[in-house]
Amino acid sequence: EVRVPNGFSIRRIQKQDYEGVIKTLSILTTVGAVTEKQFGSIVEYWDTQKLPKGDVYKYNPYVIVEDSTGKVAATGNVIIEQKLIHECGLVGHIEDIAVGSEFQGKKLGALLINKLTEVGLESGCYKIILDCDPKNVAFYEKCGFHTAGVEMQIKA
Amino acid sequence: EVRVPNGFSIRRIQKQDYEGVIKTLSILTTVGAVTEKQFGSIVEYWDTQKLPKGDVYKYNPYVIVEDSTGKVAATGNVIIEQKLIHECGLVGHIEDIAVGSEFQGKKLGALLINKLTEVGLESGCYKIILDCDPKNVAFYEKCGFHTAGVEMQIKA
Ligand SMILES: CC(=O)N[C@@H]1[C@@H](O)[C@H](O)[C@@H](COP(=O)(O)O)O[C@@H]1O
Ligand SMILES: CC(=O)N[C@@H]1[C@@H](O)[C@H](O)[C@@H](COP(=O)(O)O)O[C@@H]1O
Repeated sequence: EVRVPNGFSIRRIQKQDYEGVIKTLSILTTVGAVTEKQFGSIVEYWDTQKLPKGDVYKYNPYVIVEDSTGKVAATGNVIIEQKLIHECGLVGHIEDIAVGSEFQGKKLGALLINKLTEVGLESGCYKIILDCDPKNVAFYEKCGFHTAGVEMQIKA
Repeated sequence: EVRVPNGFSIRRIQKQDYEGVIKTLSILTTVGAVTEKQFGSIVEYWDTQKLPKGDVYKYNPYVIVEDSTGKVAATGNVIIEQKLIHECGLVGHIEDIAVGSEFQGKKLGALLINKLTEVGLESGCYKIILDCDPKNVAFYEKCGFHTAGVEMQIKA
């Protein structure tokens, strides 16, 4: 089980995390204009989407929060895909991992990855995958991941 | 718009495609025991899952069918993920692409990828991604994709 350092908590994202999550995600990539209302609607949507079996969440958006300040230290999500292959298997996709700049160097990123991996495996996934920049491969290897393939994209 | 060769059709997977889809997917990887009833439940589930906005399908499972025989020639899916980044952006994940052995060499794979990409972009995705074996990179480049990162995994 994942151990959180003293003074921090890890839990699903809530509507109150609006500012902290947006700020933290801005470290990863372009967030753009997302209003508090839009954030709230997406958190609600994520909380209502379920897999066909076992009352399992499809989206698993998490935050690590600093208890004393309520600040968001890190955020990430694991999205669970219902497949046919592997006997109607499930695959967890880890997405949108970001650690706040003032919280780096505390191993919170690895903690978050371990938690999301645990959530995915406990939900019944036969594998957990993620796509990353080549410069982050060593970090994910430390978290127990292995290179599996090539990510390819088309932009709109 | 995507052009289907004479004698073939492309459409969403239906329950009647059970045998053909399972057989075709077996070319990609382990499918294992999937009953007709389980297949039907997953097709139904895929057909009911929507994005928060615009009555858009979350799962877009497609087949290319040979008109004269009703045989499944190829299958694939594009799953649309609701994010916060990129102004509450959407990302399409192309998954589980397989072309039946007797239908290879007819460019049906490229046709299917073009169709799934089109479905994803018309659904509003800011990008479409997929993970593949290094040996398939050249094929996906011909389909207009570029290498974007490294796929990493943990198996259960
Ligand atoms: C493990 C992880 O966090 N990977 C992220 C991915 O989840 C995110 O969606 C993407 C955003 O990049 P973009 O702004 O170019 O779409 O960056 C990284 O690949
Ligand atoms: C573009 C494409 O079709 N990629 C597929 C992926 O969608 C599928 O889920 C996986 C199955 O492999 P597995 O049996 O090892 O999970 O193979 C390939 O990476």
